[in-house]
Amino acid sequence: MESVAQVEVVRVDGDLSERGVDLVVVEEPMEIRLGGVPLAVLMRTPGQEADLVLGFCLTEGIVLAPSEVAGVTPEGEGDRFRVDLAPGVTIDPEQFRRNAYTTSSCGVCGKASIDAVMVAARPLPSGPVLGLDLLRSLPERLARAQPTFAATGGLHGAAIFSSTGELLSAAEDVGRHNATDKAIGHLARRIWPLGETILMVSGRVSFEITQKAAVAGIPVVAGVSAASSLAVDLARDLGMTLAGFVRDERLVIYSGANRFTLS
Amino acid sequence: MESVAQVEVVRVDGDLSERGVDLVVVEEPMEIRLGGVPLAVLMRTPGQEADLVLGFCLTEGIVLAPSEVAGVTPEGEGDRFRVDLAPGVTIDPEQFRRNAYTTSSCGVCGKASIDAVMVAARPLPSGPVLGLDLLRSLPERLARAQPTFAATGGLHGAAIFSSTGELLSAAEDVGRHNATDKAIGHLARRIWPLGETILMVSGRVSFEITQKAAVAGIPVVAGVSAASSLAVDLARDLGMTLAGFVRDERLVIYSGANRFTLS
Repeated sequence: MESVAQVEVVRVDGDLSERGVDLVVVEEPMEIRLGGVPLAVLMRTPGQEADLVLGFCLTEGIVLAPSEVAGVTPEGEGDRFRVDLAPGVTIDPEQFRRNAYTTSSCGVCGKASIDAVMVAARPLPSGPVLGLDLLRSLPERLARAQPTFAATGGLHGAAIFSSTGELLSAAEDVGRHNATDKAIGHLARRIWPLGETILMVSGRVSFEITQKAAVAGIPVVAGVSAASSLAVDLARDLGMTLAGFVRDERLVIYSGANRFTLS
Repeated sequence: MESVAQVEVVRVDGDLSERGVDLVVVEEPMEIRLGGVPLAVLMRTPGQEADLVLGFCLTEGIVLAPSEVAGVTPEGEGDRFRVDLAPGVTIDPEQFRRNAYTTSSCGVCGKASIDAVMVAARPLPSGPVLGLDLLRSLPERLARAQPTFAATGGLHGAAIFSSTGELLSAAEDVGRHNATDKAIGHLARRIWPLGETILMVSGRVSFEITQKAAVAGIPVVAGVSAASSLAVDLARDLGMTLAGFVRDERLVIYSGANRFTLS
């Protein structure tokens, strides 16, 4: 299935209107099943399904390492994916419904959400130490890794870079969390945890983005737009570096400024 | 609880960095309970909780009309809300978990998602007929109804306008679906279904936005950014007008151009 679709539209500019063809990003539901039990339904953009499923299972704490997953297999017409666990790994799928972190029995306040992530997250590396110019170069490089956004304007992007700025993994999706899961899932096959890396996302940084980075062990998260209060709280509790509004020469550092060489 | 929070940040501009205080949007989990059963956990921005809960229950098809809800009551520390049904109304909460539409037993493909919404959606009014200038004026008026976005840059906005451009309802939230549910829930107390109205959202138009509009009976949906393929498919099947990239003099009409007076 393609990640973009052609649709007939009417384009309006001032008083002029004309029929034409536009590209829209494809959004389709996908079901993840584990041991015959539906684990989650994600509204996602087709592509990198195996990365998305692996990344989702890792960052939602369903499995603890890529080695616990033996394989991800499409079923039916390509909208169902079955997770097979490695021999000896047992998981109760009923325990892991969507929002596993936020429905913890101790309550649903932000503190409880942070505590739940703290349990699942691994200690972050103390590095890397980054120059500001490196961070500032990432939004443009993320944009170049987003061919579908260029065509449709309708996608979120996420990319993981090394501490020297090497692009390690990139993904696009109609859902910001899915894009992050795809990028993490792709890289997790090679490295786990992800080490001294940087997660750059095209939009806002929500709690769930920092949660996913935390579980993957990513110490630096940056977004082109704002961060939420709970994302900032979690980043500070974890010692994670969190930057927002990374645009041109400017940026805002919400947490972990020690990883930057500031003047 | 406030919808914005002050955080200490480091602001960087070129080679200069300085400590300061920034405003971030508050993101906090909220649990909706029905008959003692947790129905959903939403990551949301505090404010308009009763509207959010009512809107969520309506647009997810949990109740069929505002009159079926006797009240929405906060429990605990303000992060749990209990829905009380009107006398004689009975609902099995187990039937309605999050993603109720997309986990229908007939499959998770886009067609099944659309079919599920078609069952819950009401016939849309054939009107209104709109001038393009009216539609073009809405993004700015939506922005004016978003005081928190102006302060933080971190929020989605949704507003409902009458066919003559009167602002009927507006809301902000860290989640785009929540903003839409708040705006719908607020107006639903006065009018249901919502009639010849226009839903304007600050970002992209996903399937779930058009789903929520469809269930509320809103015939015109417009976004400042792109629409997804499944949103376009649903709008066309319903005869809903869907416009995107509404910016300055330009816009793209994906569906239902008959509701505009085009030259």
